[in-house]
Amino acid sequence: MDIDRPEPQSPTLPASPRRRSFIARGAVASLASATGAAHAADNLPPNVPQWMREQGTGFLHPPYGLPSPFEKEVVRKLPDQAVAFPTATRTPLQSLFGSNTPNGLFFERHHAGVPAIDPAQHRLMLHGLVERPLLLTMQQLQRFPAVSRSHFIECSGNSMAEFKAPGKGTVQDIHGLLSGAEWTGVRLSDVLGEAGLLPSASWILAEGADAAAMTRSIPLAKALDDALLVYGQNGEMLRPEQGYPLRLLLPGFEGNMNIKWLRRLKVGDAPFETREETSKYTDLMPDGTARQFTFQMGVKSVITAPSAKQVLDSHGFREISGLAWSGQGKITRVDVSLDGGRSWHVAALDGPVQAKALTRFRLPWTWTGQEAILQSRAVDEAGNVQPTRAALLASDGQNSIYHYNAIQSWKVASNGEVSNVHV
Amino acid sequence: MDIDRPEPQSPTLPASPRRRSFIARGAVASLASATGAAHAADNLPPNVPQWMREQGTGFLHPPYGLPSPFEKEVVRKLPDQAVAFPTATRTPLQSLFGSNTPNGLFFERHHAGVPAIDPAQHRLMLHGLVERPLLLTMQQLQRFPAVSRSHFIECSGNSMAEFKAPGKGTVQDIHGLLSGAEWTGVRLSDVLGEAGLLPSASWILAEGADAAAMTRSIPLAKALDDALLVYGQNGEMLRPEQGYPLRLLLPGFEGNMNIKWLRRLKVGDAPFETREETSKYTDLMPDGTARQFTFQMGVKSVITAPSAKQVLDSHGFREISGLAWSGQGKITRVDVSLDGGRSWHVAALDGPVQAKALTRFRLPWTWTGQEAILQSRAVDEAGNVQPTRAALLASDGQNSIYHYNAIQSWKVASNGEVSNVHV
Repeated sequence: MDIDRPEPQSPTLPASPRRRSFIARGAVASLASATGAAHAADNLPPNVPQWMREQGTGFLHPPYGLPSPFEKEVVRKLPDQAVAFPTATRTPLQSLFGSNTPNGLFFERHHAGVPAIDPAQHRLMLHGLVERPLLLTMQQLQRFPAVSRSHFIECSGNSMAEFKAPGKGTVQDIHGLLSGAEWTGVRLSDVLGEAGLLPSASWILAEGADAAAMTRSIPLAKALDDALLVYGQNGEMLRPEQGYPLRLLLPGFEGNMNIKWLRRLKVGDAPFETREETSKYTDLMPDGTARQFTFQMGVKSVITAPSAKQVLDSHGFREISGLAWSGQGKITRVDVSLDGGRSWHVAALDGPVQAKALTRFRLPWTWTGQEAILQSRAVDEAGNVQPTRAALLASDGQNSIYHYNAIQSWKVASNGEVSNVHV
Repeated sequence: MDIDRPEPQSPTLPASPRRRSFIARGAVASLASATGAAHAADNLPPNVPQWMREQGTGFLHPPYGLPSPFEKEVVRKLPDQAVAFPTATRTPLQSLFGSNTPNGLFFERHHAGVPAIDPAQHRLMLHGLVERPLLLTMQQLQRFPAVSRSHFIECSGNSMAEFKAPGKGTVQDIHGLLSGAEWTGVRLSDVLGEAGLLPSASWILAEGADAAAMTRSIPLAKALDDALLVYGQNGEMLRPEQGYPLRLLLPGFEGNMNIKWLRRLKVGDAPFETREETSKYTDLMPDGTARQFTFQMGVKSVITAPSAKQVLDSHGFREISGLAWSGQGKITRVDVSLDGGRSWHVAALDGPVQAKALTRFRLPWTWTGQEAILQSRAVDEAGNVQPTRAALLASDGQNSIYHYNAIQSWKVASNGEVSNVHV
């Protein structure tokens, strides 16, 4: 076989549609001619692009690499409405693949900005109802046996506007207070074991080293179950906005409880009733009472492709793909509807499926131009089924701003435009 | 329980060593007093650091986040020797956790710099012994069903200097042409099916869109087995230096065959005998013959903590941890020796273990100050056992610079200094 650089001809098209084809005939033909035209202008043989005619860049880029400039729109995003003191950015779910979120795109939520902590000066104090109070350096913590596990974090206020009316933005704007990562750290139970718990120990106060001194009460059972003190995220040290150098990770619990910049754990015999669990982060019910200590995030899913503000530019095969997650364990099934919930199809799940972690689902779809209402419905290993919006509102009302996990509906119009609808 | 900001006392130390303790007594005591001293100077209550007294930074950092400035040494690295045209950077294995490598730290190897490719202009041509030649845009490729899988890539020249003498650098310098990622893309078999293979098809030429037009011959069996055309890496689009916007991924095959900036696939009936598989990337044997088409990377492992040029600053508990991988499938066992290979201990493997992917192993160790020679030995599901250096040299000699996969020995001196030795 010769390997000379080819002078490509317009590709021959299939004479007839094949049994399974992922590309449309018309699209290939027009591309071939477009490519030829682009190169005619500079009198070069077709399909030998400029970047093959010159040496590429060397190692001038920073030694810590960054995405292509062509990906400059794939970034975290503040809310569209101007706010004096923004406190959150959202993850571009519509642009991501797989399950875990790159660290540079992991959503942010903080209560007093991002502190610039010197890890050599940082300490974790463990005191209260323990036999031996501890004051630990990062170096000492990193000597404990390490564990790496993939888990999602979702802000309990994620998707909150959907309690009222369908948001006008993208899936990033609507559901982007959600990310996933492989975390590395030490078992909180190991550290508690080092200190020795007194018999009356039943709750733990966790405090952050930010100017808000963010504090939450953690049930001891959770601390002894699967809680981690993490210093690593997706293979490297935590990012500053994710709690560098130390974060409490409570898999499946609402985001704000995963205390960032963790500096102190105080063991007690009752909840500490902090501002963030009394004034904030309680759920106002229809009868005017407040539901407190709703730790676990519900079973939830969202289709990310296609999703709001995208436009299907042609008919034919495409995959429906999205993310599913649950604070109670593994995702066991995701159903997808193309007709607003009248009929359902079982989606494929990317493996290995992990507990309390983002799980990618996929369903093949051939869009022939008809209007469609796309929905996904997740089920977890505890048997929880993601509710319809009507069912969620029937139980929780519309006063709460937390724990919205209803089924999302995307309408695909016959012109290909995708929008957020409540059905 | 009150939650007032505490005025920490020097922590009480355990009266006697506990059955399992991960921290040394002396270390905690000295830390407690050191912390007090640091705060005496500014007359503040102890342990209330400056970063709790002022609002942190807002969203001034770029919307695409970066690591803490305190992590500025954790970067890819050029060789220590000055070279006129460096063509590779190495991954800081000694600083990483888990298994996959952050994209900003993934090792680089290129043959003509990094081309700046506009994905809207990029095309993949598929021609040769096919029924229907194809010219595909990125948009068309991304309409095929997607797959996400974790796989390592290792340069076949990784660790090459160890054929001769023990390298003086860190594990990054010695073995850092190795990284892992979760890749997202489409099955090459799906794209070949779209084109239709002619009966005589048996090899595929893959060509990159860099100025080197990097080319390699791929056996058709591999293309139809688990080969992917990837556009995603760790959840986002490929980085420029990893082949943006499209890369051939041949799980377990030597790094250079995973053609970056993939622009062309030509189906043939024989190997194409390119420069990169005749003049380069063949293995010179002791008898003067050259071994060609050594595609698969061997079973291999390396301890990353502790590793060369680190210093164990205190006795006591610590974990031995490292990475294992094989081009032939899953890692099934890693043995660790503390005495230069006389006795072995079975290490724990972080799950879920995936085929042809980096696998983290761990062994608890209490260092009491004695000299030790640390080794790891990986075994894969095909039954391959990582060879000793003597066994590798007996079979392959010292002329080759590729496919070095011998057991690595780190010597821990009684003063805690770790160095690279050949035993």
